[in-house]
Amino acid sequence: MRDRDVNEAALQQPPFAHWLGMKVTHVSRERVTAELAMREEFNNRFNIMHGGALMALADNLGGTGTMANLKPGQRTTTIESKTNFFAAVPMGDTAYAECTPLHRGRTTMVWQTKITRGDGKLCAVVTQTQLVMDAER
Amino acid sequence: MRDRDVNEAALQQPPFAHWLGMKVTHVSRERVTAELAMREEFNNRFNIMHGGALMALADNLGGTGTMANLKPGQRTTTIESKTNFFAAVPMGDTAYAECTPLHRGRTTMVWQTKITRGDGKLCAVVTQTQLVMDAER
Amino acid sequence: MRDRDVNEAALQQPPFAHWLGMKVTHVSRERVTAELAMREEFNNRFNIMHGGALMALADNLGGTGTMANLKPGQRTTTIESKTNFFAAVPMGDTAYAECTPLHRGRTTMVWQTKITRGDGKLCAVVTQTQLVMDAER
Amino acid sequence: MRDRDVNEAALQQPPFAHWLGMKVTHVSRERVTAELAMREEFNNRFNIMHGGALMALADNLGGTGTMANLKPGQRTTTIESKTNFFAAVPMGDTAYAECTPLHRGRTTMVWQTKITRGDGKLCAVVTQTQLVMDAER
Repeated sequence: MRDRDVNEAALQQPPFAHWLGMKVTHVSRERVTAELAMREEFNNRFNIMHGGALMALADNLGGTGTMANLKPGQRTTTIESKTNFFAAVPMGDTAYAECTPLHRGRTTMVWQTKITRGDGKLCAVVTQTQLVMDAER
Repeated sequence: MRDRDVNEAALQQPPFAHWLGMKVTHVSRERVTAELAMREEFNNRFNIMHGGALMALADNLGGTGTMANLKPGQRTTTIESKTNFFAAVPMGDTAYAECTPLHRGRTTMVWQTKITRGDGKLCAVVTQTQLVMDAER
Repeated sequence: MRDRDVNEAALQQPPFAHWLGMKVTHVSRERVTAELAMREEFNNRFNIMHGGALMALADNLGGTGTMANLKPGQRTTTIESKTNFFAAVPMGDTAYAECTPLHRGRTTMVWQTKITRGDGKLCAVVTQTQLVMDAER
Repeated sequence: MRDRDVNEAALQQPPFAHWLGMKVTHVSRERVTAELAMREEFNNRFNIMHGGALMALADNLGGTGTMANLKPGQRTTTIESKTNFFAAVPMGDTAYAECTPLHRGRTTMVWQTKITRGDGKLCAVVTQTQLVMDAER
C-alpha cells in the first residue's frame, strides 16, 4: 500500500474523497492508484459517470501524489488541471485511476492521471499542476 | 429563469447535479448560472471546497449551456476541460458560477465558467469544449 | 504605449518576437496588445495562419504582461499554456491579440489572450500561467 | 521514415514547419518524431528556446500524426492544445519531439507530444485535440 518514505499526510484522504467513495489502492512517491465505482449519484443524464466525478477522482490523486513527496511542514494546492475525455464509464462499471508524475520540482509538481474502465479502455487523461508551498507562505 | 427558445432538455439537471446540491439559477442560450454552497462533504483537508467539486459544478454548466442551444435530437458530450484555480471557497461561503459561450459552432461549442465567492473574488475559471452530436451518430 | 509604472524589462521584446514579426502596440500592467500579420511563412497547408504562430504570439504577450508587473530582480517563466482555436486567420489578414490578467498573485500570474482578426471574429483564446521567481531562485 | 499505409498528405510539411526549420524524422500512424535545433531566432530573453517555438513544434506533429490516419478526402484542424513546461532547451541544444496518440476516434483524435533535450530531460508535454472533418464539411 505504501512506501516507507511517503509523507504520512498523504495517507489520510480528505472528506470529499470519502464522500465520493473513492478507494485509494496504492500510495507511493512515484504512483498513486484509486478506484471509483459508478453509481446512480454520478449519473450524467445518459447512465454514464459524470465528467465532474472523473475530474474529482483525478484531482484528488494528484494532490495525494504531491503530498507523498512533500517535506514536513510543506503544503500543496492545485493551480490548474486539464482533462481530455475519451470513453464513458457506464453503470455497473468502475473507474480505475493511475496517477504518475511528469515533473517533481521544488516549486511545482505536475501529475498525470490515466483513468480506465473494466475492459481496459482509456476513458480520460488528467494533467494537473500542484504548487508546493513552504509552511510560512 | 429561462428563454422561450431554450431546448427543454437543458432544464432537467442530471442526478449528479442534484447529488452535489447545485442550484441552477439561470438558463438561457447565452448564459447559465448556478450556486453551490460549501459544506463538510466538499472539504479538501484545509476547510475549503475541493477543486473537484468546483470542476464538477462548471462541467455541469457547460453541458447545460450547450444543451440549451441544441436542436431536437442532438446530444452533447464534454471532450475536454481546463481549469485554473485562484482562490479558495471556505466553509460558510458559496461558489457562484457564471457560464458563457466563447464559441458556438455546428460541431463544437466552447464555454467558459467563472466561479466567484461571496466577496466577489474570482476563485476559478473553467474552459471546456463540448462536442455536438446528431442523433444518429 | 505604456504606463509610467511598467517594469522596463517588459518593453524589450525577445529575439523570437522580432523574428516572428509581432508588433507590440500597448504595454501596461493591466493589458498588453500586439499584432501579427499573416504571411507565407506562417502558412499551415490551407493558406491560414498556423496554430503554432498564434500560440507563440499569445505566449509572448503573457510573458510581457507578467514582466510589466514584476519587481526589480524578479523573473518569470511560462509553466503552462492552454489554447482553444475557433476561426482561421487567412492570408491577407492580421491577428490582433489582447492579453489581460485573470490573476496576479505573489507566486503565479495567469493571463488570458484573445486573438481576433480583421472582421472582429474571435480566432483563439489562450490562457497561461506564469511563475514569478525571485532573483535568487 | 514511414509506414506503407500512411496518408501521403502527412509527408508534406507545411511552409511554417519549413520556416521554423523542424526536421521530421519519423512518420507512421502510431508515432511522429521531429527535431528542432535551438538557434538565436528562438531566443526568449534568457538564451533558451521560446515556449512558442516548442508549442509550434508540437502542434505541427499532432497535425501530422492525425493526417497520417485520415482517409482520402478528410481534413483536420487543431481545436485545442495544452502545454506544460518543465525544463529549458538552451543555446547549443536541440528539442527532440515524439508524438503518440491518446485517442483516435471517428470525430476527434488526441495526440500527446513529449519534448526532450540532448541530455534526455523532459522539457515539455503537449496534448492536443484534432477535429476530423469529412471533405464536404
